[in-house]
Amino acid sequence: MLLRLFRRTSLLIGGLLLLPLLVAIAMLIVRLTLVSMSDPATDQVHLEAKRSYLASLPAADPNAPNVVIIFFDDLGWGDLSSYGNALIETPQIDAIAAEGLRMTSFYSASPVCTPSRAGLLTGRFPPRTRTDQHVFFPDNHAIGLWRRVMGRANALPREEITVAEVLQRAGYRTGLIGKWHLGEAAGHRPNDFGFESFYGVLFSNDMFPFDLYRNDEVLIEDQRKGSLIAAERDETSPLPGSGIDQRALTGIYTDEAISFLEKEDDRPFFLYLAHSFPHVPLYASEDFANTSRGGTYGDVVEDLDRSTGAVMAALDRLGLAENTLVIITSDNGADYTGSPGYLRGRKGEVLEGGQRVPMIVRWPGKIAPGRVSSEMAMATDLFPTLLNYASLPLPQDRIVDGRSLTDYFSGEAASPHAYLYYFPMNGPVPVAIRNDRLKLLENSGDLGRNRNHVTLLTEDVEAHDVQNLYPAEAAALRQALADMQQQITENTRGWIE
Amino acid sequence: MLLRLFRRTSLLIGGLLLLPLLVAIAMLIVRLTLVSMSDPATDQVHLEAKRSYLASLPAADPNAPNVVIIFFDDLGWGDLSSYGNALIETPQIDAIAAEGLRMTSFYSASPVCTPSRAGLLTGRFPPRTRTDQHVFFPDNHAIGLWRRVMGRANALPREEITVAEVLQRAGYRTGLIGKWHLGEAAGHRPNDFGFESFYGVLFSNDMFPFDLYRNDEVLIEDQRKGSLIAAERDETSPLPGSGIDQRALTGIYTDEAISFLEKEDDRPFFLYLAHSFPHVPLYASEDFANTSRGGTYGDVVEDLDRSTGAVMAALDRLGLAENTLVIITSDNGADYTGSPGYLRGRKGEVLEGGQRVPMIVRWPGKIAPGRVSSEMAMATDLFPTLLNYASLPLPQDRIVDGRSLTDYFSGEAASPHAYLYYFPMNGPVPVAIRNDRLKLLENSGDLGRNRNHVTLLTEDVEAHDVQNLYPAEAAALRQALADMQQQITENTRGWIE
Repeated sequence: MLLRLFRRTSLLIGGLLLLPLLVAIAMLIVRLTLVSMSDPATDQVHLEAKRSYLASLPAADPNAPNVVIIFFDDLGWGDLSSYGNALIETPQIDAIAAEGLRMTSFYSASPVCTPSRAGLLTGRFPPRTRTDQHVFFPDNHAIGLWRRVMGRANALPREEITVAEVLQRAGYRTGLIGKWHLGEAAGHRPNDFGFESFYGVLFSNDMFPFDLYRNDEVLIEDQRKGSLIAAERDETSPLPGSGIDQRALTGIYTDEAISFLEKEDDRPFFLYLAHSFPHVPLYASEDFANTSRGGTYGDVVEDLDRSTGAVMAALDRLGLAENTLVIITSDNGADYTGSPGYLRGRKGEVLEGGQRVPMIVRWPGKIAPGRVSSEMAMATDLFPTLLNYASLPLPQDRIVDGRSLTDYFSGEAASPHAYLYYFPMNGPVPVAIRNDRLKLLENSGDLGRNRNHVTLLTEDVEAHDVQNLYPAEAAALRQALADMQQQITENTRGWIE
Repeated sequence: MLLRLFRRTSLLIGGLLLLPLLVAIAMLIVRLTLVSMSDPATDQVHLEAKRSYLASLPAADPNAPNVVIIFFDDLGWGDLSSYGNALIETPQIDAIAAEGLRMTSFYSASPVCTPSRAGLLTGRFPPRTRTDQHVFFPDNHAIGLWRRVMGRANALPREEITVAEVLQRAGYRTGLIGKWHLGEAAGHRPNDFGFESFYGVLFSNDMFPFDLYRNDEVLIEDQRKGSLIAAERDETSPLPGSGIDQRALTGIYTDEAISFLEKEDDRPFFLYLAHSFPHVPLYASEDFANTSRGGTYGDVVEDLDRSTGAVMAALDRLGLAENTLVIITSDNGADYTGSPGYLRGRKGEVLEGGQRVPMIVRWPGKIAPGRVSSEMAMATDLFPTLLNYASLPLPQDRIVDGRSLTDYFSGEAASPHAYLYYFPMNGPVPVAIRNDRLKLLENSGDLGRNRNHVTLLTEDVEAHDVQNLYPAEAAALRQALADMQQQITENTRGWIE
């Protein structure tokens, strides 16, 4: 009797588990087949609109500057000596800051890599570019495969417009040296998005495979054993395996950047030098190993400082400094190592330390030297800013979320932003907003402790919730955030009909 | 055929799941029955040794001071104006700091409540007192029940010796006003551990039930509906339900503390004023609501400052100030709200912000005024320190982990510690260690990013790993940490045979 009950219950439990499992497996097989056969999704209407826009572009204003963007990976707000670091010395970068504008309230477009880079290059918020779900992975890595199976983007959609494509079309010579991290599928690589030349890597230096490319050619292939799940990985031994010698990485990017600048070509240029460091694993060049008071991280940052100085010296030597806008910033805040300065939070968090980053802008004669500004701006502003310098129109079929900073850089106007919006690492809508002094965070991120939090950024760092003291301003922030959430929800990609 | 295979597989899967489930349920029923029938485990041998020790104690030195410990709950290192807070004003506490010693490198015994309080009262590390697994919960809360079913302590073991028991035995009048959080089982309450008088609460102000006691009598009973799982809980509405009006809590503790001081009694006294705030949910008294520039958290802290001033005024009025050692500190770093100052991390973390807390010590004529010290000490030191002041011997059957600070307080000697050890919120062994300038953290706590990390505390806050620069010192720290881990593993409770 009891045995029979046990038998029947077992059959019921087992059947209820087995049937959906079999169905799920069958569906997964179908899905995997479809995914492996298909290219990343493309919006044909806006791909056409993009082509028309690019085709219609005039030549850039002859007074437009050359542009060099030096983009660090995971460099924290507090990692440069000009930003208060007590252990790391960055005299080259500090000197550039002294010759131009140093911003203390500049934000990357996201607290993580991929959406930050998409925002920098397109001027658009993460959900616009389908980069609102963490970072892209190699297509055949388990996570990359899973992303594709789940219908998430794993490459920048082809209909997106990068600043490189616009400037190239308007007559610039364009080059990416360093890290892409916007996909590896055919048609979605740097050369497909406006970079005439690409020398660098498609992914982060802790991902597998970590191959070095020149355009589509693999120069150095990752020799480590890898699988769908993981590659050998070690952050502390000298090298992660055969392949790129990461100790040499900053040096070879620097040499390549100088070669790019030296190239004889009458066109203006756009150089996007996207370093792989100080993202972990950390490797400084042999000259710098064990020299910084900031440990290996300090060695790596001081190596990057030397690199930056070498690029500046090349600009000087080639007589290009006066005509070149130099921008130095980072893709997000410090990771578990590195310094957010006095800010709360780190990479991956919408707290200040996750997204507020160093930002230095130099254009001799056009941007006043020695200026330090706490006005707010975001990396999404660079797309409209650079187009503005070149007198090029914005695309009309889509929302560009950034605002041109040209008048702010020149000192003729304040920051164009009444509000900045913070998008989480995972999630399609912003969860925080700031104005010139208050920040509203919709939840603290602490499990079971999710509460609105309003901080007085001018005197505090997300420690004390002061919404009781600023009820009207807090309500206005809440309303503006809700409005943006609604806008994004209703028109995620920001298409203008 | 396929159907039969499905049926058999289902039966197998279901049976393999059902059988262990039935066994587990049966075992759980047995265990629950045993747990509900039994008292918390007691080590009879050391309970006897404790009784002998207490019985053998001489009277306290007649020159020994009265002692007032004002213990805040979750007050962060950066939450007082004397510790640099820009928004919150704490003139009363700051004045006490100016009249005595202010320590900038003082640590609670744990980054969470229960083990911190156990360490303060017994002078012993969390695993010694079986408080190394997070905090105690009401016995009939799901977590409390689960703790007991799992064999974890949910009350301070009876064989542990508190400073209150020692001082009471040596002739002190002893009182706890405020929060206990060391168990609710019969025989494990404040009156059972040396407090002649108890007025306060057994648990945190976000736990249920939250009853107010005078000794064993419930003065105000929590009227909220509660269950095994949870009570109604709200951190933002004025009151969490019927029961204690939390707005009045700081005020009634203060009044009770003054009454304690006013009591006519020839004996010296030991007053442990353990506030419930600024632990969440936050409620300031009506006088303070919406008055602080630091928001509601600021209101609450300024209310506590007023309370502290009132207790000091009572000492003055009663002519007790000269003979009274006043100690002001916190049980752990700031929770998700509140300020760790420039330190990394918060409550629950072995990072500095989790465990470094304000510490102010005043004893007019015995401790020099206006001294600020960055030497290191920990709350576990207070047990041997107070015994030393009273010329009382330490127990000989057990390790007391703290060291007496009397000579350091008087300025005759440096901190007695070569090393301090950091115990995690959950776990039986320390995972970090510091000396006078370096801290070694065995892992950063970041998933998948666990690495040793050595920080130069004198110039950095756990941002940059510098173990490459101090290999010998880092190795010494690693060895000392490993030694302590081994000691604790081999003799967790620290019994001396």
